[in-house]
Amino acid sequence: MTSYTERSAVTVLGLGPMGRALAGAFLDAGVRTTVWNRTPGKDRELVERGAVGARSAEEAVAASGLTVICVVNYDAADAVLRRAEVTDALKGRTVVNLTADIPERARDSAAWAAEHGIGYLDGAIMTPNTTIGTPDAVFLHSGPEELYQEHRPVLDALGGAHTHLGADIGRAAAYDIALLDIFWTAMAGYAHALAVAGAEGISARELAPFAQGIGAILPPIFAETADEVDSGRFSGADNPITSAASSMAHIVHASEAHGIDAGVMRAAEGLARRAIGRGHGQDGFIRITDVLKPR
Amino acid sequence: MTSYTERSAVTVLGLGPMGRALAGAFLDAGVRTTVWNRTPGKDRELVERGAVGARSAEEAVAASGLTVICVVNYDAADAVLRRAEVTDALKGRTVVNLTADIPERARDSAAWAAEHGIGYLDGAIMTPNTTIGTPDAVFLHSGPEELYQEHRPVLDALGGAHTHLGADIGRAAAYDIALLDIFWTAMAGYAHALAVAGAEGISARELAPFAQGIGAILPPIFAETADEVDSGRFSGADNPITSAASSMAHIVHASEAHGIDAGVMRAAEGLARRAIGRGHGQDGFIRITDVLKPR
Ligand SMILES: NC(=O)c1ccc[n+]([C@@H]2O[C@H](COP(=O)([O-])OP(=O)(O)OC[C@H]3O[C@@H](n4cnc5c(N)ncnc54)[C@H](OP(=O)(O)O)[C@@H]3O)[C@@H](O)[C@H]2O)c1
Ligand SMILES: NC(=O)c1ccc[n+]([C@@H]2O[C@H](COP(=O)([O-])OP(=O)(O)OC[C@H]3O[C@@H](n4cnc5c(N)ncnc54)[C@H](OP(=O)(O)O)[C@@H]3O)[C@@H](O)[C@H]2O)c1
Repeated sequence: MTSYTERSAVTVLGLGPMGRALAGAFLDAGVRTTVWNRTPGKDRELVERGAVGARSAEEAVAASGLTVICVVNYDAADAVLRRAEVTDALKGRTVVNLTADIPERARDSAAWAAEHGIGYLDGAIMTPNTTIGTPDAVFLHSGPEELYQEHRPVLDALGGAHTHLGADIGRAAAYDIALLDIFWTAMAGYAHALAVAGAEGISARELAPFAQGIGAILPPIFAETADEVDSGRFSGADNPITSAASSMAHIVHASEAHGIDAGVMRAAEGLARRAIGRGHGQDGFIRITDVLKPR
Repeated sequence: MTSYTERSAVTVLGLGPMGRALAGAFLDAGVRTTVWNRTPGKDRELVERGAVGARSAEEAVAASGLTVICVVNYDAADAVLRRAEVTDALKGRTVVNLTADIPERARDSAAWAAEHGIGYLDGAIMTPNTTIGTPDAVFLHSGPEELYQEHRPVLDALGGAHTHLGADIGRAAAYDIALLDIFWTAMAGYAHALAVAGAEGISARELAPFAQGIGAILPPIFAETADEVDSGRFSGADNPITSAASSMAHIVHASEAHGIDAGVMRAAEGLARRAIGRGHGQDGFIRITDVLKPR
């Protein structure tokens, strides 16, 4: 493993599960790592592993040319970065913001950074904290290409796949929002399915292998239907949206018969019914992307 | 491939995309196959491939000891099977109902079958019609073990994995509901994500590879969190539900800022907020299964 000790240093602000994973990966890669968290004490294990525990955020950012911040959202990131002492200390340095939020907040942060002579890159982490430092981690980046290339060697220490999505600073957040939309909606479906199964006397462990099978068929379906959305040609020949709506109604019915809230599926069924109402009943389910489009 | 020609015969009622796939797989396996569909003409290709096209459902069921029915739902299945002529013709024969619906409809059909001296098995198909006849197909069955074993050789001609879930006739439908809950909720999330991405200038084809990555991380997460649900011990150490709720709020905000309906995510976020409101904010997201449980 390359050692970055002599030439690289990084500061990590925010030591929640993800911030700790990031700092840990930098340490493992031999990068000199300074850490700070709003609530003290979360740096203990990292300091034992060789990190420098800073007493304040301004002290932390002053220790490195590159600061990675990863907190719950941009309200939290702003609360840390936009204090005058921190903003001053960041002048001439670079911030990579790996906090998840909406594209407009990333754009707003880039404007703030430009105003204060701070280099700014925005990013998103698409995999759980346990993947950080492993080949399974997935990072998306956006912002000035040159700045990204400059800091890439240090960012690569986080392991996994890094994709620079372009100069538009909001791009990583836009991908993040869309991908988290898939993730959390699917997780809501899974949590709900376990509740319905439980009411039918099926344990989570009994359902899980079959649920994994459902999970496994999603990626190829995602790939196929993407083409339909881009081309605007929707084929329901194999599975028309009327058939999907029928299944969705069964799920609502079976859930509510057990006293289980079916609000998520009711909303999804509503989208299917809207597509049918517009005369697309023989199209495939992905037609609802088109129905959802802003007009 | 074993030829069943001499000893086996099957009738397929319902020639939608799935019924046609089932009949095609039986033909490919050399099973003598009789087919019928409410709307005439859908049997043409199957008849060219060697199927017998029956003029009525009663004629169709009289041609084989085993009838497989696969129509849109149990209202449709009942409309076909419970006409007096068909019910009479089925006496002493067996029906395998591969139509998707809710467990109580399967139980009701079993009672009807018992009353008329008809053998009855209920089943569910968990994979798309394109998998039928291939190793990727997944079938769930429930009902009397002996009856299942008797017809298993013919059912095996459909390819894929067949699991008999037990004598409780509603079991296959209960698994089906839970698994379709996961599938259609995830598909709704994907369709929505493509709409949000589109509004941000990201094409479906650009998002798809990353969406496939999200799909790929679901199965292991499904397996891990199943244990938490069964044990009632929820660990949010790596990713607390407060963090999930924050992401969900971003998705709602970013969608609605583009004029895109966020009803599905609003409902999902509501479940997360309910869990937080009950004091489970530091637990993992799958805690919502517990919150949804009927009390
Ligand atoms: N965990 C994962 O597997 C994962 C995966 C992908 C992406 N992410 C993203 O990574 C980011 C961090 O997530 P996480 O897992 O570490 O946990 P989190 O619960 O989302 O964030 C916790 C961190 O935010 C800080 N924070 C919250 N409010 C603050 C405020 N007002 N001022 C300063 N700091 C504040 C916390 O500090 P205190 O300790 O002082 O409260 C802590 O450092 C999130 O945007 C998340 O969506 C996480
Ligand atoms: N397609 C798939 O990939 C897939 C995957 C897993 C499970 N399934 C399940 O398989 C079943 C069949 O699905 P499918 O894909 O073939 O398409 P479908 O659209 O769900 O069902 C179409 C079939 O239902 C028949 N039908 C509808 N209403 C009827 C009525 N009142 N009386 C008699 N027949 C009626 C249609 O006959 P007409 O031609 O006369 O309208 C046609 O044969 C469904 O329960 C579905 O959930 C399908």
